[in-house]
Amino acid sequence: MMDGVYKKVTEEMIELRRDFHQYPELSFEEERTSKKVAEYLRACGLKVREHVNGYGVTADLIVDEAEPMIAFRADMDALPIQEETDLPFASQIPGVMHACGHDGHTAILLGVAKLLSFQKERLKGNVRFIFQPAEEINPGGAKGMIQEGVLEGVEAIFGLHLWSELPSGTFRTCYGPMMAAADRFIIEIEGKGGHGGMPHKTIDSIVLASHLVMASQQIISRQIDPLEAGVITFGKFSSGTAFNIIANKAVLEGTVRSFLPEIRETLYKKLEELTTGFANMYGAKIHLDYQYGYPPVENHKNEVDFILETAAKVFGRNNTGIMKPNMAGEDFSYYLKEIPGAFCFVGAQVPNKPVYPHHHPRFQIDESVLPKAAQWFCQLAFDYFDRKKELK
Amino acid sequence: MMDGVYKKVTEEMIELRRDFHQYPELSFEEERTSKKVAEYLRACGLKVREHVNGYGVTADLIVDEAEPMIAFRADMDALPIQEETDLPFASQIPGVMHACGHDGHTAILLGVAKLLSFQKERLKGNVRFIFQPAEEINPGGAKGMIQEGVLEGVEAIFGLHLWSELPSGTFRTCYGPMMAAADRFIIEIEGKGGHGGMPHKTIDSIVLASHLVMASQQIISRQIDPLEAGVITFGKFSSGTAFNIIANKAVLEGTVRSFLPEIRETLYKKLEELTTGFANMYGAKIHLDYQYGYPPVENHKNEVDFILETAAKVFGRNNTGIMKPNMAGEDFSYYLKEIPGAFCFVGAQVPNKPVYPHHHPRFQIDESVLPKAAQWFCQLAFDYFDRKKELK
Amino acid sequence: MMDGVYKKVTEEMIELRRDFHQYPELSFEEERTSKKVAEYLRACGLKVREHVNGYGVTADLIVDEAEPMIAFRADMDALPIQEETDLPFASQIPGVMHACGHDGHTAILLGVAKLLSFQKERLKGNVRFIFQPAEEINPGGAKGMIQEGVLEGVEAIFGLHLWSELPSGTFRTCYGPMMAAADRFIIEIEGKGGHGGMPHKTIDSIVLASHLVMASQQIISRQIDPLEAGVITFGKFSSGTAFNIIANKAVLEGTVRSFLPEIRETLYKKLEELTTGFANMYGAKIHLDYQYGYPPVENHKNEVDFILETAAKVFGRNNTGIMKPNMAGEDFSYYLKEIPGAFCFVGAQVPNKPVYPHHHPRFQIDESVLPKAAQWFCQLAFDYFDRKKELK
Amino acid sequence: MMDGVYKKVTEEMIELRRDFHQYPELSFEEERTSKKVAEYLRACGLKVREHVNGYGVTADLIVDEAEPMIAFRADMDALPIQEETDLPFASQIPGVMHACGHDGHTAILLGVAKLLSFQKERLKGNVRFIFQPAEEINPGGAKGMIQEGVLEGVEAIFGLHLWSELPSGTFRTCYGPMMAAADRFIIEIEGKGGHGGMPHKTIDSIVLASHLVMASQQIISRQIDPLEAGVITFGKFSSGTAFNIIANKAVLEGTVRSFLPEIRETLYKKLEELTTGFANMYGAKIHLDYQYGYPPVENHKNEVDFILETAAKVFGRNNTGIMKPNMAGEDFSYYLKEIPGAFCFVGAQVPNKPVYPHHHPRFQIDESVLPKAAQWFCQLAFDYFDRKKELK
Repeated sequence: MMDGVYKKVTEEMIELRRDFHQYPELSFEEERTSKKVAEYLRACGLKVREHVNGYGVTADLIVDEAEPMIAFRADMDALPIQEETDLPFASQIPGVMHACGHDGHTAILLGVAKLLSFQKERLKGNVRFIFQPAEEINPGGAKGMIQEGVLEGVEAIFGLHLWSELPSGTFRTCYGPMMAAADRFIIEIEGKGGHGGMPHKTIDSIVLASHLVMASQQIISRQIDPLEAGVITFGKFSSGTAFNIIANKAVLEGTVRSFLPEIRETLYKKLEELTTGFANMYGAKIHLDYQYGYPPVENHKNEVDFILETAAKVFGRNNTGIMKPNMAGEDFSYYLKEIPGAFCFVGAQVPNKPVYPHHHPRFQIDESVLPKAAQWFCQLAFDYFDRKKELK
Repeated sequence: MMDGVYKKVTEEMIELRRDFHQYPELSFEEERTSKKVAEYLRACGLKVREHVNGYGVTADLIVDEAEPMIAFRADMDALPIQEETDLPFASQIPGVMHACGHDGHTAILLGVAKLLSFQKERLKGNVRFIFQPAEEINPGGAKGMIQEGVLEGVEAIFGLHLWSELPSGTFRTCYGPMMAAADRFIIEIEGKGGHGGMPHKTIDSIVLASHLVMASQQIISRQIDPLEAGVITFGKFSSGTAFNIIANKAVLEGTVRSFLPEIRETLYKKLEELTTGFANMYGAKIHLDYQYGYPPVENHKNEVDFILETAAKVFGRNNTGIMKPNMAGEDFSYYLKEIPGAFCFVGAQVPNKPVYPHHHPRFQIDESVLPKAAQWFCQLAFDYFDRKKELK
Repeated sequence: MMDGVYKKVTEEMIELRRDFHQYPELSFEEERTSKKVAEYLRACGLKVREHVNGYGVTADLIVDEAEPMIAFRADMDALPIQEETDLPFASQIPGVMHACGHDGHTAILLGVAKLLSFQKERLKGNVRFIFQPAEEINPGGAKGMIQEGVLEGVEAIFGLHLWSELPSGTFRTCYGPMMAAADRFIIEIEGKGGHGGMPHKTIDSIVLASHLVMASQQIISRQIDPLEAGVITFGKFSSGTAFNIIANKAVLEGTVRSFLPEIRETLYKKLEELTTGFANMYGAKIHLDYQYGYPPVENHKNEVDFILETAAKVFGRNNTGIMKPNMAGEDFSYYLKEIPGAFCFVGAQVPNKPVYPHHHPRFQIDESVLPKAAQWFCQLAFDYFDRKKELK
Repeated sequence: MMDGVYKKVTEEMIELRRDFHQYPELSFEEERTSKKVAEYLRACGLKVREHVNGYGVTADLIVDEAEPMIAFRADMDALPIQEETDLPFASQIPGVMHACGHDGHTAILLGVAKLLSFQKERLKGNVRFIFQPAEEINPGGAKGMIQEGVLEGVEAIFGLHLWSELPSGTFRTCYGPMMAAADRFIIEIEGKGGHGGMPHKTIDSIVLASHLVMASQQIISRQIDPLEAGVITFGKFSSGTAFNIIANKAVLEGTVRSFLPEIRETLYKKLEELTTGFANMYGAKIHLDYQYGYPPVENHKNEVDFILETAAKVFGRNNTGIMKPNMAGEDFSYYLKEIPGAFCFVGAQVPNKPVYPHHHPRFQIDESVLPKAAQWFCQLAFDYFDRKKELK
């Protein structure tokens, strides 16, 4: 019987994903998406809670109130990117696109909710489905949902990210830190403008800012442990209005990536020392606005062991493995700071097509991984409680 | 009798200057101004030639065809600046302003034309009045006017610049180089963009461009004779679209200032070597677009001696002197490459008011210098030919 | 009975170590040491081979020719450092010191040879003791010994390093890369000297070299994967003869550290591109002499599992653990490229004394770890072959 | 009669010069030289004063106590250089050489003393001959001689420098600043040393010092008026003891050149700000020892006019001219701060031979300029007082 159910749910997942893809919504604006999510979950017979931290939704599949509960999480928001694919279900919303796969994440988790509802008798514990808003922008949706209690009574949490740079149907995770802390900074430099031929009457903001960019390279090369990861990237450099006028102002914007808290603090502190030092040296005003972003995603050891086992059953042992940590950020990190759990990547590269990275206007995912990923979540739910019983 | 004439012409000069000030015209667009100029000159009984290199105008005061001729030059164009003075005759044209004193230059030279016409009998030679378009933008109006023959039959040329940073009624010039060669360059850097956390997969345009700015400092500090002037200014630095994306492109714009041709060539050549070297070192594409601007204004020795003498008569010996060269540019340089002559600054600072530099939205000049400057031009004309006779 | 033997051998090890310490010998000059080593081994009844790759010595303890053989390795050379300890057995040789603990390594392995000889009946396989010269200097003694066949017939190899920065009696190792590849480079810059006041007639070697040091920082910060370790250190910068003369030459010396071959190649290649680029940019001659040093020490997984097990028996499970890789180099790496094996650190910090790092003139080790370390080697030998039998 | 005298004195000058050349003496050690100088002067019948500021000598030729007095100055010291010429009269003193022409200066002035003594009747005023020690090293001999009164009663002072880079028999001087202020600085950087593979545990002195060298380039390129001369040269950079150890110390030595006091102060102040800023930024100790050297040689206008006139008589008008200022230093500057005067260069290039710069081990001068230079000094003395009488 389940074969028919699987087939039907697979079709639904693909339909749902394409619908979400056509009507993407920006972070904290997931109104339409969350409404569809809540409806579907209710139709599965689950206890649904809406408007959690904005458009967040949770749904509980309760087998037995006395049993423990685990949680699965999906994120629902899209990006401010103009889609450039030729998909028949490409975004209908100008300048907004599901260019990171969250449409897939949401569809998968809805599929899981229905599949597990059908197999409630096989399930020895309870499952909470968490659909969060705003994974793409600081401070992210996870933090607020936790504050609104979505982890209460939850013993462990699991989540996945479809990944266009891994072959479709492969499964990867890693022990400990898996995704980086991702901070943002803005440096505003106020020099003193003037005539392009008379530099000595000015404080040249472009020379100062260029010097600062160069000086910060050695923070990475000399001031952090070479065995630890750290990145300082200046993504924007804007200064000057005319070729022959010395600029009075420069603005630098960038990001800092790290895994260890001590590396993160060192990078922040050294940037601060640099800006202070430069302000004194040049007689300029320099303002550093440092905004902490998500903490690193740090997987828990036992949960990694466990998801590797279940993944081997679903994706095959050959397709299951350990990955190197990734310098991107994820607010799944907040859940893992509260309770045990693990995050993973599920390969979703479209076979025989050029690979576009996440956040690219031509980003695509292979839809055939949706049922596989859903199956893995189901396996996880069954195994989690079975193992628990065994251990007793 | 001349007293009355002087008074009348002074009034006319001020009126003309205010009219030009109210209706400023951008470089190569001096239609209205040139029309007024030509009318006034014709009314003085001069032989007028219009539409020289666009809106250029010349007028000849011929005493005796057999005698030599000298030329006086004024420039007529305004700047793309929104005036911020509270003058009753402030600019009526939004975004256009006589913020460099060319309105004064034109009015003075018209006054001179009338004054000399009245005193033709005192004059022992001929005078050509040159009103040129477009001194403010490359390639300037001078070059084209010369090509159209405005220096034919002219023995020497003189010009002045009202200068808001010198006390009103002072006169300054210098021997040899007086104003700098002013070139422009644009450097386009094409690196390779990418994820802010994965610098090793990119060619970071901001780091490259910052490094290039820093590396070019030593061209000035180590590679040119410390006894010679040279400036490389980067006026614009634009790169990047988002704080967390490594930029694939950067554009630098700047100006190079110099007096000696060998310094100019060294600065150009070193910039080129730097960009080529950096392209190789980083594996990036770098395009240097170097645009030669005006050559330096180089005064001729005898003519400087001569104008200092006549200036002492008009401005007083105490107010007449030698100035340090100035790093700004002037296309009067082209005339001085063809025939002998000299350029000078006439102080026009408004007494007891804050001084705003040239090209500033609040730039002003002291109108009382107009008759003085006109008187000096007249003196120059008389003395030039008298001295000539004497030397024979 | 073994208790008495252990006691006696412990005394001998300490005596031997102190003797080696008093008469340290530089790399490839270990004549006296190797002679003592060979004598002691012969006295243990072992089959000794001398003069292997210079002063290398091997000795075989053969239980049964039909059985497999494993190898233990010690290194014998000292450093060109003037000892500054107040030990009664401080170095008698001016300017030469055992400041890295090799005296201990040699003494331990001699002790192991005697202890195992006494317990031959417990041993189910054969053991080769390798005493190698010249671990401290490139190309190291290991390479040549392998070429002379010391690994022939050997199934696995093990070695240790006493470590003054770890508490005495602790045991640490790690999976995979444990110690870095350590290369050396010398950059000779030939600019053009001249008068300190006339930089434009010179090619300033100090500015060039300083620029090169700064430019190389971004190789680390931008051009290698932030998740991988890489270091470029400039240890020496020598240039100039007088404060007021521009230097015509500069010499930079440094080291490159890495674990992955691709990182190593990137660092070398980028340094080369930098020097070539700078030579072109400055019109100078720059010669990069890049000398590959030892490859990284890469432990084999099964052997790490195995030594952790045996270490737990000897040092206690609490004192046994995984360490972060170390950026220092070791030519034990050559053995591990040939056959399975593992390397480890045994803590040898002197309790209640200031810790001096390896290669420091006041470096010391806690002698009480000698018998422990010897015991561990013995345990390893017993367990290795026992386990082997079991698995059959 | 004077022809015979000139011939004889010419021979004596050459003989004296060769003697001084063979027995050069370092700064403040000119015992033998000064003794010979004093003897010769006494033999001319002059009133000699010895041991002025060490080995300084003065001699007065008094025509009439009532008349004014001018002074001529020569310097007597040699350099710590090992001569590499093949001259028959090359230095007999190992490591000491007249590599700057002071032997010539002294011989010339002795010749002048004799020639003027013979022509006392033509002379309408008095002349003081000043032979000073130690022009080559800070604080120089001039300062102390002035303190001991050598300028008392002197109206004007004149001096020359033989110059190997100008054609023999040419004469050059300039108005105002002629030779630069030449200061010295030593920057001691105390970072924190450590293992070459662990930069994060250190403060890398080589990176810091290299950065400081690079950062100081923009002091010249951006922070002083491009129309004024300024140089910061780092002549020595010493850091590090081994390629694989991060250096705990670096020493930079250099020179600062300038003409204007405000530029000099700016350069010092900016270097100081830089070192302070870097100390803070890196957490290192940096000590800047800035030693003021000679002030610039600033010629007085009337005296320059005057020496140009007399030089034209002796060297020919074609060989007489204005030179660009020179970035080298000279303590003749101290005299010109007290009384009017002028300094000049007399070309002394050896015809048809390679030119070696001053302070080079193969430096040479063309001896045929000695009588010419002496003649010019004589002419100066005659003309100076004649003109004075005339003006009355």
